[in-house]
Amino acid sequence: MSVVDLNADLGESFGAYKIGCDEALLQIVSSANIACGFHGGDPDVMDQTIKAALKNSVRMGAHPGFKDLAGFGRRVIRGDSPEQIGRMILYQIGAFQALSAANGAKMAYVKLHGALSNIAMVEPEIATGFVEAFARLETGLPIMVMPNSALSRACATADIPVINEVFADRAYMPDGTLVPRSADNAVIHDEEQAINGVHRMLDHQCITAFDGTQINTPIDSICIHGDHPQALSLAQNLRASLEKNGVTISAGLAAKI
Amino acid sequence: MSVVDLNADLGESFGAYKIGCDEALLQIVSSANIACGFHGGDPDVMDQTIKAALKNSVRMGAHPGFKDLAGFGRRVIRGDSPEQIGRMILYQIGAFQALSAANGAKMAYVKLHGALSNIAMVEPEIATGFVEAFARLETGLPIMVMPNSALSRACATADIPVINEVFADRAYMPDGTLVPRSADNAVIHDEEQAINGVHRMLDHQCITAFDGTQINTPIDSICIHGDHPQALSLAQNLRASLEKNGVTISAGLAAKI
Amino acid sequence: MSVVDLNADLGESFGAYKIGCDEALLQIVSSANIACGFHGGDPDVMDQTIKAALKNSVRMGAHPGFKDLAGFGRRVIRGDSPEQIGRMILYQIGAFQALSAANGAKMAYVKLHGALSNIAMVEPEIATGFVEAFARLETGLPIMVMPNSALSRACATADIPVINEVFADRAYMPDGTLVPRSADNAVIHDEEQAINGVHRMLDHQCITAFDGTQINTPIDSICIHGDHPQALSLAQNLRASLEKNGVTISAGLAAKI
Amino acid sequence: MSVVDLNADLGESFGAYKIGCDEALLQIVSSANIACGFHGGDPDVMDQTIKAALKNSVRMGAHPGFKDLAGFGRRVIRGDSPEQIGRMILYQIGAFQALSAANGAKMAYVKLHGALSNIAMVEPEIATGFVEAFARLETGLPIMVMPNSALSRACATADIPVINEVFADRAYMPDGTLVPRSADNAVIHDEEQAINGVHRMLDHQCITAFDGTQINTPIDSICIHGDHPQALSLAQNLRASLEKNGVTISAGLAAKI
Repeated sequence: MSVVDLNADLGESFGAYKIGCDEALLQIVSSANIACGFHGGDPDVMDQTIKAALKNSVRMGAHPGFKDLAGFGRRVIRGDSPEQIGRMILYQIGAFQALSAANGAKMAYVKLHGALSNIAMVEPEIATGFVEAFARLETGLPIMVMPNSALSRACATADIPVINEVFADRAYMPDGTLVPRSADNAVIHDEEQAINGVHRMLDHQCITAFDGTQINTPIDSICIHGDHPQALSLAQNLRASLEKNGVTISAGLAAKI
Repeated sequence: MSVVDLNADLGESFGAYKIGCDEALLQIVSSANIACGFHGGDPDVMDQTIKAALKNSVRMGAHPGFKDLAGFGRRVIRGDSPEQIGRMILYQIGAFQALSAANGAKMAYVKLHGALSNIAMVEPEIATGFVEAFARLETGLPIMVMPNSALSRACATADIPVINEVFADRAYMPDGTLVPRSADNAVIHDEEQAINGVHRMLDHQCITAFDGTQINTPIDSICIHGDHPQALSLAQNLRASLEKNGVTISAGLAAKI
Repeated sequence: MSVVDLNADLGESFGAYKIGCDEALLQIVSSANIACGFHGGDPDVMDQTIKAALKNSVRMGAHPGFKDLAGFGRRVIRGDSPEQIGRMILYQIGAFQALSAANGAKMAYVKLHGALSNIAMVEPEIATGFVEAFARLETGLPIMVMPNSALSRACATADIPVINEVFADRAYMPDGTLVPRSADNAVIHDEEQAINGVHRMLDHQCITAFDGTQINTPIDSICIHGDHPQALSLAQNLRASLEKNGVTISAGLAAKI
Repeated sequence: MSVVDLNADLGESFGAYKIGCDEALLQIVSSANIACGFHGGDPDVMDQTIKAALKNSVRMGAHPGFKDLAGFGRRVIRGDSPEQIGRMILYQIGAFQALSAANGAKMAYVKLHGALSNIAMVEPEIATGFVEAFARLETGLPIMVMPNSALSRACATADIPVINEVFADRAYMPDGTLVPRSADNAVIHDEEQAINGVHRMLDHQCITAFDGTQINTPIDSICIHGDHPQALSLAQNLRASLEKNGVTISAGLAAKI
């Protein structure tokens, strides 16, 4: 019998603007990455999302991004030092902690969003800037990472626990990174293929690259996209298939150093 | 012998934009109200200001305001519920707590900024929205208030300790509120008159309104403006005069319920 | 036979955030109030909306609001002078003119949004601040106004043409202002009642207040809300009913001084 | 006898935040690059700067940048298409045109700011995105460019006139680009050396790279930095030296296609 966590991005609405399928996703996931007001979310949305996650017994993580509502955190903003990036992440984490605390909830981990995540996974300086800032908070909490990434390595160096995450609907390169979205085969559109891929990853605790290369990796959590109907269907069917095959969906994993 | 706290607004610069006389003020005050990135300040400025306050052994308070950099937090934004206002204050407090924690510093109190402070002092619903949100953080920390204000009363109701604050350079109405800035006599421009007024307030623990009315009030802290050279001179001379007359400038007051 | 204009707010999406039923509304209205990036909209959304309005032969107006994406322009921001408000409206108008010009389109009028509109309709200083700023552009174009409003009067004083607008789904006070949304009878929820009311207003060129009072007024345009399905149904049925009764829907009215 | 234009960035203050030496610079320059509210400036600052430029008979150009007040437009924001960048520049240009028109002034040219300028000078797609958008306004006005840049070439392709600009205090590479600021010799700190360099450039209508390479180029305008006292001194002494040597400072150049 095995256990795996399912995570999704939530709480990305802003004021009058609604985005995402938060209610449906909270029925599926065991961990919610909650936007912290920079790339999406606002204090009201954060509060509602925290309450909804509590009600659904879903683990909550802070999900900081670039301060770029116009670009939804998907644009890289170049020019800040790693220390500056660390500070702007701390700012968001703190905001999330206060709104959690006011609801009797607790931040359980941190996962970076969008372009900020992308650069932290491949640029050691950025990864280190974030990890060193986070370490100074002395929370003992884990950071959700791509296995074999710069961020994963920075966490190891700083003795920060990690949650190793894989993607159900993305193809991998032989070095364990994602096939860039610009490539034709970046996204796995076939639902059955995606679900089978997840089973294979969990069974063997390894990622299979698009060319067949196998990369051994611990897998703690599977990232689910729910921002459009097709993705939501994949999420629902993935959960059903996992449970049918005896996999328990739960965030209750010991995070690993 | 008596003791009083001097406080000033600090850390209101933003990116390339510098504002205020932070270095000079940190030599004068015992408490720093540090902007939290909504009306002024940003994660880098907050970090620098926290470090500078630590170095000068100055007590630090979070200084949240309306999210209105364009108006420097001096414009009232109407339309949010008291609960929404409470949440946007929590957001800023949390951000400040994280940046403090990363520096080994601790938030010691909260003081509202500008237009947000103005409405919280006179509107019970806003005051209560803020106080109830803050109470849920269970910090045990005080809120800096104008004596006899709606905010002061909301704190009393919620058993939140307060720091009672008076202004050196502002005239008071017979009911203990400030003479509005639109009135000719709102600001005390004569430095000697302002300093003598502070001595009188401290000696008698009462505010003297512009018409001579005396309002008994505990006085814990004196607000100092340092945003222009004349104000800085008043601040320096006020401190010198207080110390010459045996008043100790210190934040080490027991905050009062 | 008579002619009337139908107008609706459009182009209020922002980045990844979609809002409104723009496509459906462009089939119904003859005038589009296009958001200018302050309360909603961004340069891309403005461009797309201008292109879509052009394609549907719909007249375009600039729709400036407070710089308040978080509040969708529905919060009053207090503290700016009428001249400052005039300038921030000009800024938005200019932005709209440039994006129009780049598409070979032309701004045909201006209509204020949300809270900015609300205060301009009742506060003569704000109305005048806007109208005097707009007059300096020397466009000769009309401003869309509520009849009998402060804005309507400021336009008359400055010889700025107006487009007189009424609301299909809102109840009126005996003085011709809207029943405030806080009142129970503010919104006319019954579709048939709303449509009949519009016919009556057009037939008699007068507004009937909730208490039966009749206020004579020229009516050039009817405002349609399309931000939720029920409102969209009203808009569609209103248009059908007007056309069935021989009313031509057209923006081709001579704007009146 | 020769004529040259001096230009500087102006109007970059924001709300309560003052930046730059606008008054002093308006005594020195013949062209003012006026910020348009995205990286600096706001409608009030734009209005004041336009009025001040008018009073000093200084030519005005729109000075659009990335929407990044926090980074003062000096951070590259990656992820927008060239068309999106073109639209966000048009938005700013239009805003500037409206505020100019309301003052009876006219935009005379466009110069990009900071990181936006940097990428437009070296990336043909960005340069073309901007130039094609600008061309659709059909103003007939020039764009200020670095000679031999991607932007310069895009202007030539689109028959947009240019104002060729050189820098007094920056060293050049053999290919006519600027020595990057990361290099030790990027900035010419010696005032006399900088002034002599400008004389040489004007006398020979060529740029001399740091290694002695000569690049022939038409020179229409010299960029002056005035954001710190030393830079202001260079600007003042450069103007004095040019005038003493019979060079007229004037924006009245025929812009060149």
